[in-house]
Amino acid sequence: MSRSESNNAEPKSPSEAPRKDDWRERCHEVIFGFHTPAGKAFDVALMILIVLSVGVVILDSIRDINQRYERQLVLAEWCFTILFTIEYVLRLACVRQPARYALSFYGIVDLLAIIPTYLSLFFPGSQYLVVIRVLRVLRVFRILKLGHHIRDANMLTRALYASRRKIVVFVYFVCTLIVILGSLMYLIEGETNGFTSIPVSIYWTIVTLTTVGYGDITPNTPLGQTFSAVVMLLGYAIIAVPTGIVTAEITHANIVERATGGLRCDACEAGGHDKDAVYCKSCGEKLPTPESDAALT
Amino acid sequence: MSRSESNNAEPKSPSEAPRKDDWRERCHEVIFGFHTPAGKAFDVALMILIVLSVGVVILDSIRDINQRYERQLVLAEWCFTILFTIEYVLRLACVRQPARYALSFYGIVDLLAIIPTYLSLFFPGSQYLVVIRVLRVLRVFRILKLGHHIRDANMLTRALYASRRKIVVFVYFVCTLIVILGSLMYLIEGETNGFTSIPVSIYWTIVTLTTVGYGDITPNTPLGQTFSAVVMLLGYAIIAVPTGIVTAEITHANIVERATGGLRCDACEAGGHDKDAVYCKSCGEKLPTPESDAALT
Amino acid sequence: MSRSESNNAEPKSPSEAPRKDDWRERCHEVIFGFHTPAGKAFDVALMILIVLSVGVVILDSIRDINQRYERQLVLAEWCFTILFTIEYVLRLACVRQPARYALSFYGIVDLLAIIPTYLSLFFPGSQYLVVIRVLRVLRVFRILKLGHHIRDANMLTRALYASRRKIVVFVYFVCTLIVILGSLMYLIEGETNGFTSIPVSIYWTIVTLTTVGYGDITPNTPLGQTFSAVVMLLGYAIIAVPTGIVTAEITHANIVERATGGLRCDACEAGGHDKDAVYCKSCGEKLPTPESDAALT
Amino acid sequence: MSRSESNNAEPKSPSEAPRKDDWRERCHEVIFGFHTPAGKAFDVALMILIVLSVGVVILDSIRDINQRYERQLVLAEWCFTILFTIEYVLRLACVRQPARYALSFYGIVDLLAIIPTYLSLFFPGSQYLVVIRVLRVLRVFRILKLGHHIRDANMLTRALYASRRKIVVFVYFVCTLIVILGSLMYLIEGETNGFTSIPVSIYWTIVTLTTVGYGDITPNTPLGQTFSAVVMLLGYAIIAVPTGIVTAEITHANIVERATGGLRCDACEAGGHDKDAVYCKSCGEKLPTPESDAALT
Repeated sequence: MSRSESNNAEPKSPSEAPRKDDWRERCHEVIFGFHTPAGKAFDVALMILIVLSVGVVILDSIRDINQRYERQLVLAEWCFTILFTIEYVLRLACVRQPARYALSFYGIVDLLAIIPTYLSLFFPGSQYLVVIRVLRVLRVFRILKLGHHIRDANMLTRALYASRRKIVVFVYFVCTLIVILGSLMYLIEGETNGFTSIPVSIYWTIVTLTTVGYGDITPNTPLGQTFSAVVMLLGYAIIAVPTGIVTAEITHANIVERATGGLRCDACEAGGHDKDAVYCKSCGEKLPTPESDAALT
Repeated sequence: MSRSESNNAEPKSPSEAPRKDDWRERCHEVIFGFHTPAGKAFDVALMILIVLSVGVVILDSIRDINQRYERQLVLAEWCFTILFTIEYVLRLACVRQPARYALSFYGIVDLLAIIPTYLSLFFPGSQYLVVIRVLRVLRVFRILKLGHHIRDANMLTRALYASRRKIVVFVYFVCTLIVILGSLMYLIEGETNGFTSIPVSIYWTIVTLTTVGYGDITPNTPLGQTFSAVVMLLGYAIIAVPTGIVTAEITHANIVERATGGLRCDACEAGGHDKDAVYCKSCGEKLPTPESDAALT
Repeated sequence: MSRSESNNAEPKSPSEAPRKDDWRERCHEVIFGFHTPAGKAFDVALMILIVLSVGVVILDSIRDINQRYERQLVLAEWCFTILFTIEYVLRLACVRQPARYALSFYGIVDLLAIIPTYLSLFFPGSQYLVVIRVLRVLRVFRILKLGHHIRDANMLTRALYASRRKIVVFVYFVCTLIVILGSLMYLIEGETNGFTSIPVSIYWTIVTLTTVGYGDITPNTPLGQTFSAVVMLLGYAIIAVPTGIVTAEITHANIVERATGGLRCDACEAGGHDKDAVYCKSCGEKLPTPESDAALT
Repeated sequence: MSRSESNNAEPKSPSEAPRKDDWRERCHEVIFGFHTPAGKAFDVALMILIVLSVGVVILDSIRDINQRYERQLVLAEWCFTILFTIEYVLRLACVRQPARYALSFYGIVDLLAIIPTYLSLFFPGSQYLVVIRVLRVLRVFRILKLGHHIRDANMLTRALYASRRKIVVFVYFVCTLIVILGSLMYLIEGETNGFTSIPVSIYWTIVTLTTVGYGDITPNTPLGQTFSAVVMLLGYAIIAVPTGIVTAEITHANIVERATGGLRCDACEAGGHDKDAVYCKSCGEKLPTPESDAALT
């Protein structure tokens, strides 16, 4: 992210550029940065606001509280939304590539976090969608210096990504199974026993195969009970497959992590270097000397 | 699949053989092949028809839709069935060994996918069995060039096959446990508490042991509740065994996969070669040079 | 099992010993052996009888069938029991060390399989306990030459045995958790909401923690629902621990199995030999030359 | 724990110090030690008392028993509490650093185990909290010389600790998912179908995602059923992630355990030594010669 060189991003009026850029620079540091005290304070305040606003939405949905404090809750909700709108506009204003930010994961979440309140003017009820704000708390990892957590999250994501094809095959297999088993159950139990249609029967199959078992629809005929016993045992058994896939990948990722000696750059904390690497492949800094991992070889 | 040499399969009238074989050759390429544009288009059209026909069957089972659009749905269902019947006859006609195709996995699925509609003339209700058509979508992997998915599916199948004996032992153990626990529960709770017979009690045991827990039959006596607590804890614990079996096999398959350096033949995409193999053991083509897998050794 | 040398086991009257021993020898071969045609036929017949007798007991528990065929079922049950009693007496008679057989696993199962019918003369209802006969089917592995299955069963047992201490620690932890969580839930929800006592509350905790979830007792207060949400998430999370323990052991057992080159004695089929073993450690026969396992090293 | 040198801990009156210290020394050996016969007897008696007192509390909560034996139960409860109070005071008295003991894990548990009975004088009902006494049974490991169990418990704890960051990431991800899915379900089903508020809807999401499935709140609309099917499949799939994390760590811990040759100090039973270690890194004693672990290399 070599932002420090190119300072000529969208200067609307050349004469104002330096002053404005200076303002944008400082604003960027507070809003996006987290190394300065102001940046940290901003992030902490933001987290508190997000959690409070999600809390307000959840409280608002409880009838008793809603009837008694309707005005205050609506007011609070609008305050939060206006604050987040201002923040979003500021983010757009002070970032060098507004389009890129607006289309990034955080940019989209930031936008989705304010839209529902405005929509609620036209479609009552949609204000509850603002709970998507809770996703914004992902930034909390940054404040708490939880770089390790992000790395571990990345490792999990990579492990899941590496097993994506096996997971697709498994999901296709399970979906096919669910459609066929659901249709068979519809034929076995029929409409008089609550299996009123194939979609309802498929819903029952999913409830049973995943071992959720609400009990809102249950088999009543002996044949149906036998068949559902088979479905349950199937569900109990095939859970082993995704677990096996993911476990094998995480085990492998762990081994690679350890085989590379836990080599981590002191400067940028990047990992995953080759065992004999001398310089960080991310930032070029010299790496610390590898720890002994004789126990594993 | 060296079909290109032997062209003398079942020529009914020798004089017509060349022309007919030519027609069959082209037909085979369209229906079974997936490298020519025509073959691809055929496969895509087939997929869409399959999904549509399964959708029609599912919609047909919903009472409201059935009553309003009965005629159209029946008509659509018969159109699909006639189309699939023609396709099945064509497949039989243009393949070199019709008997072998008819007895192959795909041949049986293709046949099962059309029979239920004809059966529904004699046994109303059996038309819902055509959902087995959904299995035909397995061919989709071929269209999307999802060779990797097939390889991964094969790897999963191999891993499950390698652990088949352990799984058989486990299944036998669980079945024995279910029969004994179910009978004990029948004795403990008795008919007055909903456990009307040993089969019903065995059904309850499966519902409980697999942690589905519908709640349609629940223990009412203190002794029954204590006993069912034991059954639940057993079910919660023994799920670890199949998971462990499958995970261990997948982990091993992954290690072998990686230890063989991901060596894959460029020609036939076969894998599983020895680490020092130079020629593909499936097609004899020269293999690419192995990638470094120093990280694992 | 070098039974062929020492023929001097418990000869009651020295004069009759040879003739009697001869009879016992042949009887032993039929009942315990499975290499001669007679021995195989006996085993197969026994299996069929066992499965039939368990089936009769299960059918007997269904009220409709019981009322209509009571006489036949009782008759069948007594026939089976008398046959099994004769078999048990014969086993005791022809085995060289009756006490040792009577106290072995199979001896106890064989006895338990006939006692309940006799008990039912005094305690009506206890005849259902004969379902323990299903355990006798364990012998089926012998008929089908499923030696591999027994080895795999042994491997699973060894893996579970190796992790017994970790499992004990986990079970103790879970039991403590259940008692404490159950008592807290009793305090939170109280008797008015169905949590009538701590034992009932502990039952609810087990139902929830194991993710069975009957729904016969559910929290009604907001605090109770929050607390039960925590219990569910705990149950969802800690299932990972026994799975992890068992998986790690099975993975290790697999690696050892493969590292020893799948070396199996041709004579006695024993496995688990050291990689450089030349003679079977069980029977002293020369082992086959080890297969290449270069892929794993 | 080199307590034997420094004997000058808190002597209140210098003249009485030797006699008092002698008394404290013997008392300490009985209460905290477990090598002398007296110490063992004390521990066993304590265990029995703890289990009995927890049993009394559980029985006390059953209405029938409570009404019939109220007096006896209250009396027993007070006896236990007074005995445990005396024991706690003795522990405080004879330990060299009372503050350190009082703030240690066992010290806090010992205190919490007696407080609820005294509290019940002011807040009826709080006496049920004494079930926390069950935690005291942790000491049982010491009596039964279950040092191995403690080591295995430590290994599990270490494995869970090593994967703490991945677990935190996963928990955060699941919590976010639950809030968003719960709010969506509230919008889809609405108050008329039992989803009366977002908190209730979040409770339903947890019940469904963890595959508990009480069935006290179930979706009624087709859209709600479709959505809940997605939630169930999600819950069924993501269970693989924590299982994978924990399994990978336990597998690694096992490998390290075995790679270090099961080297354990004979003096202090510490493990985890390097393969070529000669002296115990915990107590400096010479280690036994390592066993051969050729099978693993």
